[in-house]
Amino acid sequence: MATLADIGLAAAINILSAFVFFVVFAVLRLQPFNDRVYFPKWYLKGLRTSPARGGPFARKFVNLDFRSYIKFLNWMPDALKMPEQELIEHAGLDSAVYLRIYLLGLKVFVPMALLAWTILVPVNYTNNTLELEAKYNNVTSSDIDKLSISNIPQASNRFWAHIIMAYVFTFWTCYVLRKEYETVALMRLQFLASERRRADQFSVLVRNVPPDPDESVSELVEHFFLVNHPDHYLTHQVVYNANKLAELVKKKKKMQNWLDYHQLKYTRNNSKRPLTKTGFLGLCGNQVDALDHYTLEVEKLSKEIAAEREKVASDPKSIMPAAFVSFKTRWGAAVCAQTQQCRNPTLWLTDWAPEPRDVYWPNLAIPYVSLTIRRLIMAVAFFFLTFFFMIPIAFVQSLASLDGIEKVAPFLRPIIDIGFIKSFIQGFLPGIALKLFLIFLPTILMIMSRFEGFISLSSLERRSATRYYLFNFVNVFLGSIIAGSAFQQLNSFIHQSPSEIPKTIGMAIPQRATFFITYIMVDGWAGIAAEILMLKPLIIYHLKNFFLVKTEKDREEAMDPGSIGFNTGEPQIQFYFLLGLVYATVTPALLPFILVFFGLAYVVFRHQIINVYNQEYESAAAFWPDVHRRVIVALVVSQLLLFGLMATKQAANSTPFLIALPVLTIYFHMFCKGRFEPAFVRYPLQEAMMKDTLERAREPHVNLKSFLQNAYLHPVFKSADDDDEDDDDVDEKWDNESVLVPTKRSSRRNTPLPSRISTTSSPSLPEVHEDSQP
Amino acid sequence: MATLADIGLAAAINILSAFVFFVVFAVLRLQPFNDRVYFPKWYLKGLRTSPARGGPFARKFVNLDFRSYIKFLNWMPDALKMPEQELIEHAGLDSAVYLRIYLLGLKVFVPMALLAWTILVPVNYTNNTLELEAKYNNVTSSDIDKLSISNIPQASNRFWAHIIMAYVFTFWTCYVLRKEYETVALMRLQFLASERRRADQFSVLVRNVPPDPDESVSELVEHFFLVNHPDHYLTHQVVYNANKLAELVKKKKKMQNWLDYHQLKYTRNNSKRPLTKTGFLGLCGNQVDALDHYTLEVEKLSKEIAAEREKVASDPKSIMPAAFVSFKTRWGAAVCAQTQQCRNPTLWLTDWAPEPRDVYWPNLAIPYVSLTIRRLIMAVAFFFLTFFFMIPIAFVQSLASLDGIEKVAPFLRPIIDIGFIKSFIQGFLPGIALKLFLIFLPTILMIMSRFEGFISLSSLERRSATRYYLFNFVNVFLGSIIAGSAFQQLNSFIHQSPSEIPKTIGMAIPQRATFFITYIMVDGWAGIAAEILMLKPLIIYHLKNFFLVKTEKDREEAMDPGSIGFNTGEPQIQFYFLLGLVYATVTPALLPFILVFFGLAYVVFRHQIINVYNQEYESAAAFWPDVHRRVIVALVVSQLLLFGLMATKQAANSTPFLIALPVLTIYFHMFCKGRFEPAFVRYPLQEAMMKDTLERAREPHVNLKSFLQNAYLHPVFKSADDDDEDDDDVDEKWDNESVLVPTKRSSRRNTPLPSRISTTSSPSLPEVHEDSQP
Repeated sequence: MATLADIGLAAAINILSAFVFFVVFAVLRLQPFNDRVYFPKWYLKGLRTSPARGGPFARKFVNLDFRSYIKFLNWMPDALKMPEQELIEHAGLDSAVYLRIYLLGLKVFVPMALLAWTILVPVNYTNNTLELEAKYNNVTSSDIDKLSISNIPQASNRFWAHIIMAYVFTFWTCYVLRKEYETVALMRLQFLASERRRADQFSVLVRNVPPDPDESVSELVEHFFLVNHPDHYLTHQVVYNANKLAELVKKKKKMQNWLDYHQLKYTRNNSKRPLTKTGFLGLCGNQVDALDHYTLEVEKLSKEIAAEREKVASDPKSIMPAAFVSFKTRWGAAVCAQTQQCRNPTLWLTDWAPEPRDVYWPNLAIPYVSLTIRRLIMAVAFFFLTFFFMIPIAFVQSLASLDGIEKVAPFLRPIIDIGFIKSFIQGFLPGIALKLFLIFLPTILMIMSRFEGFISLSSLERRSATRYYLFNFVNVFLGSIIAGSAFQQLNSFIHQSPSEIPKTIGMAIPQRATFFITYIMVDGWAGIAAEILMLKPLIIYHLKNFFLVKTEKDREEAMDPGSIGFNTGEPQIQFYFLLGLVYATVTPALLPFILVFFGLAYVVFRHQIINVYNQEYESAAAFWPDVHRRVIVALVVSQLLLFGLMATKQAANSTPFLIALPVLTIYFHMFCKGRFEPAFVRYPLQEAMMKDTLERAREPHVNLKSFLQNAYLHPVFKSADDDDEDDDDVDEKWDNESVLVPTKRSSRRNTPLPSRISTTSSPSLPEVHEDSQP
Repeated sequence: MATLADIGLAAAINILSAFVFFVVFAVLRLQPFNDRVYFPKWYLKGLRTSPARGGPFARKFVNLDFRSYIKFLNWMPDALKMPEQELIEHAGLDSAVYLRIYLLGLKVFVPMALLAWTILVPVNYTNNTLELEAKYNNVTSSDIDKLSISNIPQASNRFWAHIIMAYVFTFWTCYVLRKEYETVALMRLQFLASERRRADQFSVLVRNVPPDPDESVSELVEHFFLVNHPDHYLTHQVVYNANKLAELVKKKKKMQNWLDYHQLKYTRNNSKRPLTKTGFLGLCGNQVDALDHYTLEVEKLSKEIAAEREKVASDPKSIMPAAFVSFKTRWGAAVCAQTQQCRNPTLWLTDWAPEPRDVYWPNLAIPYVSLTIRRLIMAVAFFFLTFFFMIPIAFVQSLASLDGIEKVAPFLRPIIDIGFIKSFIQGFLPGIALKLFLIFLPTILMIMSRFEGFISLSSLERRSATRYYLFNFVNVFLGSIIAGSAFQQLNSFIHQSPSEIPKTIGMAIPQRATFFITYIMVDGWAGIAAEILMLKPLIIYHLKNFFLVKTEKDREEAMDPGSIGFNTGEPQIQFYFLLGLVYATVTPALLPFILVFFGLAYVVFRHQIINVYNQEYESAAAFWPDVHRRVIVALVVSQLLLFGLMATKQAANSTPFLIALPVLTIYFHMFCKGRFEPAFVRYPLQEAMMKDTLERAREPHVNLKSFLQNAYLHPVFKSADDDDEDDDDVDEKWDNESVLVPTKRSSRRNTPLPSRISTTSSPSLPEVHEDSQP
């Protein structure tokens, strides 16, 4: 058991590290040469340019204005200043709604913490169960436990307070959730209604087109839709399997980078031609002239690409049985996306086409038949990943406990017995061990989702988020509770039957509160503070800048603003929801730590969204039903565990009153699902018709066909004449379109200049700075 | 514990009573005066007429041809003769598919019983655990238990056999389920494709039309659909709240019946005018002349009806915010039914319109807002009904046990101790007590479903079936297992925590096998045999025939063929699925009893469907997903209980292998849901377009508007000129339509004359008889 002093030390360490991160961030972000790392969003929007022009040489790289360092936390109020509507226009609805999850956490837990501390903490504290136990049974307990439900004697009537509070907390959470669901649904609908014309509004992705011996896929699709949607069908684009081509293009780009690197090296030092080795990473193999070698490679790949492009375009086998079908009206697309086309529900599957930039092209080439099998394989793989990942965690945690270390390495005992080190091991190591394990997980999960064959980035991220949450739940939450306890109470645990689990977990929960408090501090405080430093992009940017960048365009490409990372961020928040809801009635002392997390994370991510992240896609908050569902799951889990805990406390009179809670919660969920979820998965015909009619009245002669003709072309085909730019191509195309279509709400003109948000803390931008503060 | 002798006696009693029922049935059905009770289906189809014409007087009422009594079981092969396709044309798809549930039972359990008896029974029998227990612990056990899993010692390796068989049984059940789902889905699609033109193919029910101060509901609906479905909207009919009017019509009909009764009485006995009392049921109040009184009443009601009819037609308040909207094409209707219309998903709700005869009119008048509340109220009410109904059952069962009776009435001991009575009490009473309780339940559940506001008879029945199944599961299945055991092992049970339940139930299951065997015999053998007697309709028909019938048309009306009764029949079948699946691995001795039930019930219901039942509606087997789901639930329950049982048997090595079973089963369910369920809830656009095109080619000038204009008029309005016929009205209308529309597949002409099916056993039909067997 960790004492209050242990927790105090851990808190001190984590607050200190968070503070250090913020100071370092404040220093780094004020340096002009870091400007593209910390303000890439503004560069991408074209509202900020390199500070290289004008001014003395030193000022280009280092900020010498010492006044600007004093107010090193100034970015915080700045981040909060931008109103939500502007934020939506600036960063998209996804980002704005993502921030609302943090706000939701604050809305749920602030009143909960206040209530718990005014009612439950006094109720718990005014007992002496733990003192008596300590006296008679020699069981030690921490000071935190004195504030928890553990301090209440068996079968006490005081448990009524916890049961009533469980009801209050549930009702409050549901109330806030409902409000939020309603708001987000409305925001989504307004956002969709105010959007400019986009290809995905008119398009539907058709998959699993049945093979036909007489017709090509393209003909088949055309005929099917001409027959079954005669008044609405406009055009279609078949999907090519261009994965090999995309790979070649990628490889060529890599070679080009090496060529650039060596050319740059050669221009800097003209004395000798750069040499390289042909083997792995240029470390082994024959030594050759680098410039010649890479020029040759690039040329060879260019030829291969041309050949492959030819092959893809002409070979009917490279056409997948899928197509993007476009309709004359939004109404037609909405109808087609929401209905079943064919008697066999696994053929002619129609679904909304994702935004062109949201499409995950490699997966479109997966034949539909293999998808079910892929899903099963991944389900089994995920099961094993989840349940066999527990072994190393449990092992490391047992090592990281004092007893474990003393057992494994008895010679360390004198060092461990030093008070400070003891506290450090107990307060810090278990959290760190866990965190290290989790760093590599999101990548694995993302690869798994890709293998499963989702066809849009947004659905890939949503799927990964679900898996990550489940993983966290089983391994971090349950794993920490059971495995941790299992190594303490091994004998009584190992032979228990599975039906005992809820009781076992419920009983172990109060004991693990201190562990989770340290976890929150490491992961939620210091971890969030580290996020703002952007260490990885910072290093990569400067490396690229030094080795590869020749032109301003290269520098543009060297920026890696990243995105929110829904697949990791959301499960993290949900984990805090889970902890907060589970411990709200059991150990209210944990709530303030969670509040700090939500507050800090809200500010940090708001800053990042405004200044850094560049979303790859816009799903118009399609993820909210997932968010809602997971909070509900956390709520039900917290209720079941409280029920299990109460059962072990012999509060036989009061425990049955808890049964109604999960029932009510699930009913509430179904109500919300019926009321709000359709806004996230369907597209009402009335809205479609309204937009169609409006548009027809405004621009009766728009050539929709040419607008839609090439919207869903694989990016490698678009960049036929400029292979190096294929990544930006889609984006550029979008920018062009937004210029072409005058109906769009011009967000840039309405948005106040960004100076107000960033100038006070970024004097490295003289032009803007002088404009707004003359 | 019941011994083998007890079960033998119970079996004898039940087989005897089934035999008696069959003999009585054989005698009754051959009597011409019962012809309308036992062959109403043929009368309704117009293929059989009253045997009153021709022949001597006695032959009209009593069958004197003694040869026909000899082969009294002849109806069985007759019932099996009609091929399925003919059955579909004769009785509709619902009935044909309903019969397939019994067949499904046979398909699942015949191989299962064979396997269990060849493998599990020897494995269980070749142990002596129960003998040893009987010797040392003085625990008695029945002979049935020797064949069950109870006979295997703790932690034995023989449990592997049960685990492997659990896998085999699961795979077999899933395989059969999948095959069946596929077949039924195909049958449904073929049935829908071959149907003649019907109003519900073109219509959509719109509910929750938002109130508008400027427009009436009718105008609002028209404008909304003209705007949002401009190319497809044809016409609409608003829904009137005609419940009061329908009530008045019903009351008038009752009065008319009384008038007829008294008139008939008067014509038979002209000497004195019949008198009646005005109070309750003519038993109290003032005495008046019956003929005058009822003539007056009928006249008064006729006036009231006219006034109410006027009021409904003119008062805008009697128009509900709902409408049946008809489209020009099936395609348009399919689109509208499958899409969301309005931004707010609770407004402008569209759904397939039920068949006109399937509409449950009283519920259309329920405002949509109150539906959610009604559903919640009914959920709570159902919960209490389910959980507080257990008390009387447990009480009666405890009384019906030997110990219970001896305790309550010690003076009965000498009688009880007589061997025969003892066996009777143990083998027969518990089943009867339970059955009595359950007789009144379906009516209550049906009323609850009505209160919930479902708008079609088919959905009412499906809902009631779901509830009835849940009720059976909790009370009959769990209730019998726990409560029965609870009264035996009271002390060890009452203070147990809820997490122990799966273990407790699993442990108690083998002990309750004999109880369920007697239950199957009472409910499943004798009960099914009693079904064919049609006792209630028989009595009512003869009462009506004697007191009310004046004309042939009255006699037609006096027939009450009834219908399958999906709301009671299907849950009963499902209960046997549950028993069979649960006991397949535990006590295989139970399986043959279930096989007899499925076989017997299949024959009986096939006979009833061919000769008696007249379905009120045709839902094209829309209930199959429910059937499938419930078998899956039974499968998962059986797996969990086996798991619980194994956990108590200390088979620690083998038990974990059972975990994969429920997971695989649920995955299988999801797979089937995705693959087949759309066929039951959606209508593919391709099919719709195909039928539209075909029809347009065949009859280009059909006036669809007039066809649809009054299809969805409340039945009371249709019978404006003939109040007495409002029940038949819809049916008649349909018959007329079927004559008008030549595209219909003329089932009657293709169907061979029914003589082959029924003549050999029904010599009371001389015309047909002589035709087919000259």
